[in-house]
Amino acid sequence: MERIKFTLEEKDMPTAWYNIQADLPEPLPPALNPVTKKPLGPADLAPLFPMELIKQEVSTERYIEIPDEIQDLYKLWRPTALFRARRLEKALDTPAKIYYKYEGTSPPGSHKPNTAVAQAYYNKQEGVKRIATETGAGQWGSALAFGGACFGIEIKVYMVKVSYYQKPYRRVMMQTWGATCIPSPSQDTKAGRDMLAKDPDCPGSLGLAISEAVEDAASREDTKYSLGSVLNHVLLHQTVVGLEAKKVLEQIDAYPDMIIGCVGGGSNFAGVFLPFLKDKIDGTKPDLRIINVEPFSCPTLTKGPYAYDFGDVAGLAPIVKMYTLGHGFIPPPVHAGGLRYHGMAPIICHVLNLGLVEARAVHQLETFEAGITFARSEGIIGAPETDHAVRVAIDEALKCKESGEAKTILLAHSGHGHFDMAAYEDYLAGKLENYEYPKDKIDEALKELPKV
Amino acid sequence: MERIKFTLEEKDMPTAWYNIQADLPEPLPPALNPVTKKPLGPADLAPLFPMELIKQEVSTERYIEIPDEIQDLYKLWRPTALFRARRLEKALDTPAKIYYKYEGTSPPGSHKPNTAVAQAYYNKQEGVKRIATETGAGQWGSALAFGGACFGIEIKVYMVKVSYYQKPYRRVMMQTWGATCIPSPSQDTKAGRDMLAKDPDCPGSLGLAISEAVEDAASREDTKYSLGSVLNHVLLHQTVVGLEAKKVLEQIDAYPDMIIGCVGGGSNFAGVFLPFLKDKIDGTKPDLRIINVEPFSCPTLTKGPYAYDFGDVAGLAPIVKMYTLGHGFIPPPVHAGGLRYHGMAPIICHVLNLGLVEARAVHQLETFEAGITFARSEGIIGAPETDHAVRVAIDEALKCKESGEAKTILLAHSGHGHFDMAAYEDYLAGKLENYEYPKDKIDEALKELPKV
Repeated sequence: MERIKFTLEEKDMPTAWYNIQADLPEPLPPALNPVTKKPLGPADLAPLFPMELIKQEVSTERYIEIPDEIQDLYKLWRPTALFRARRLEKALDTPAKIYYKYEGTSPPGSHKPNTAVAQAYYNKQEGVKRIATETGAGQWGSALAFGGACFGIEIKVYMVKVSYYQKPYRRVMMQTWGATCIPSPSQDTKAGRDMLAKDPDCPGSLGLAISEAVEDAASREDTKYSLGSVLNHVLLHQTVVGLEAKKVLEQIDAYPDMIIGCVGGGSNFAGVFLPFLKDKIDGTKPDLRIINVEPFSCPTLTKGPYAYDFGDVAGLAPIVKMYTLGHGFIPPPVHAGGLRYHGMAPIICHVLNLGLVEARAVHQLETFEAGITFARSEGIIGAPETDHAVRVAIDEALKCKESGEAKTILLAHSGHGHFDMAAYEDYLAGKLENYEYPKDKIDEALKELPKV
Repeated sequence: MERIKFTLEEKDMPTAWYNIQADLPEPLPPALNPVTKKPLGPADLAPLFPMELIKQEVSTERYIEIPDEIQDLYKLWRPTALFRARRLEKALDTPAKIYYKYEGTSPPGSHKPNTAVAQAYYNKQEGVKRIATETGAGQWGSALAFGGACFGIEIKVYMVKVSYYQKPYRRVMMQTWGATCIPSPSQDTKAGRDMLAKDPDCPGSLGLAISEAVEDAASREDTKYSLGSVLNHVLLHQTVVGLEAKKVLEQIDAYPDMIIGCVGGGSNFAGVFLPFLKDKIDGTKPDLRIINVEPFSCPTLTKGPYAYDFGDVAGLAPIVKMYTLGHGFIPPPVHAGGLRYHGMAPIICHVLNLGLVEARAVHQLETFEAGITFARSEGIIGAPETDHAVRVAIDEALKCKESGEAKTILLAHSGHGHFDMAAYEDYLAGKLENYEYPKDKIDEALKELPKV
């Protein structure tokens, strides 16, 4: 019988995260203060983040040690398994070798806790008693709730109101881990109250929820803020996934020809590919292909300009250089809520701009079709976000079938879809549609880019 | 750092299931034909099950080889990890060593696919094209849907109507894996049509759904029937869990003082404890304690008589000797739907009657309290069924705290609660209640035991 599951031994788990900033051919463009438009310094971030995370954000050390307490927590679900998708390969009748690294076995069901427990740890170390954050569909909020439970830190989650009522189970998960979760806009902040005064029925938005969480953190001495993607230190923590994948592939003498993952803020996929990108940058693996997959309806990397823009809708967050559709752009309501972000992690944008990675946009219906093929062969029902990556992995495997090439594909499988079954139901009932590239709305939003 | 996760290497996975029937001090009392009341023969079961499963049902071979195809499928999620619950131990401040074997990482999220893929395999081997089954809350139906997808067998699931509408996501899971799932009572069977003629608004019951699935299978040449618990061959397949646990404990030189699990039909817990029970029967481990945990509201093992009774409400299923509350007993609506069965696996009943294992009943509120303690320390949010076992594991660990004994506890953790968050929500909102032991209803139901 052929092996299909490859897992590191606990003793071989990574003990340091990999920091791509040590190896970038050019440094990242600096982030800017949203008010002064001057390069951002540690003092600008100190009200929001613990100093250790601010240091990680700008560090150029190649490896940053993972504290023992975090390594111990990782062991609750790490190392995660790398699978050889032999049943999928057979279903596709492809000579390609498809591997997938599966993050769905963590308590919240995705890669998110890799950074949530790390962020909670550093906050705890610096005496922080309480963390405020925002969440859209609830994936990040539940991961940080879990992180808070690990260290006895109070977690307050501002959850976009429409999701709070439509997706109650992620909220209950947060409460089960002890967090407080309220619908945004709320009465708890000025930003929320102002919005409710204008529009009592406002359904909320991620941008507004960010504003509430940031205001909460900035206005209380005992509270910091936490973000679940985009920032350099978040991507850093996620490299534990790619480091594990790389080591276990080494053990079986394999190396990917291409790595495929979905990108919303970008932390899941960057966490997988950055340790491999090192080999492309240093010339060891010049032909390695890295494919970022995004929705056609929110085509940040494939259609946006590379420009300075705000990270949030309200213009309170730092200005960063990234591919962007404009901070005011509201994408169509595709089910992959985690991919509906106007911008993208600056690190991913930078390496895309340098030509080191590529990007591809896919339509919603085709992603669910791929997700169902995957579920019926490999068993796992993936999150709609992840199904975007599965779509492209299948496409590439089918190209191999045509060309006869036995390429090795590494798929970043970020999590399960247990809280997204309503989306599968809509797809199976023929109720979903594809959205065209929303050119007019993007052109409109791009007029509002900040002048720097 | 101390290890907390222990996983067998793929090469050490069990290659045979363990059959307790080889080692029982007395053989099981025979099952009886529901009509003739004579001991059941293979011919009675042939319309419903493939011959290989009928053979396994009565086999006294100690080990039954796991076919390669099933071993390959097991590898999609097996071996599952054995965890040392160090964070829970710390939270309880107990000297007890708590280990838990976690089955929640399988595609459907529980132990159920261990037998679902095996049953689908044997049906496939014998040319069966289609399998009919019933499901209550959907845990078993989704596992068999997954099993059907693995072998290209059509699966028809009769899902209790009230659950079909209240818990739509398990149904969508089944559909995602390609199964057909309809609400029971349905127009597809005489049993269903008769009931709908009498009561068009009938909410359905597990007993009625069994009748529909059995009628479906018995009336079609291409179709067999499948059951997800209770039967000897189902428990046999589940021993893969206990065999893994035993081997990995051996590797770290540990052996449990007690094993604790929840029981509805009994297959999950029996799968864990049977390979250890062997050591108690042969005298190697005379002091091993095995604690079956059930709800106070459905106290089959703790309050029922050991008597011959029907396996289903309608009296179509075989008559077996078991602890029973009467086949007409309808338990109060506790959230642990998988534990609401009037009877229990004959193997468990037999070894309880022989004094080899013990049983304990717990109240609903206390199980959720335990589940939340577990979630906040170990991360995993368990199924409400599993929380029953967690409750007793915590109680025993707290007894160790009092006595100062460092006992080793093995907890059978059967699965996650991702589809049960509504139950947690009700608990957290203070909406749940404890149910008293429903003595009058049980006494009433026990009047209807069949005369044999």
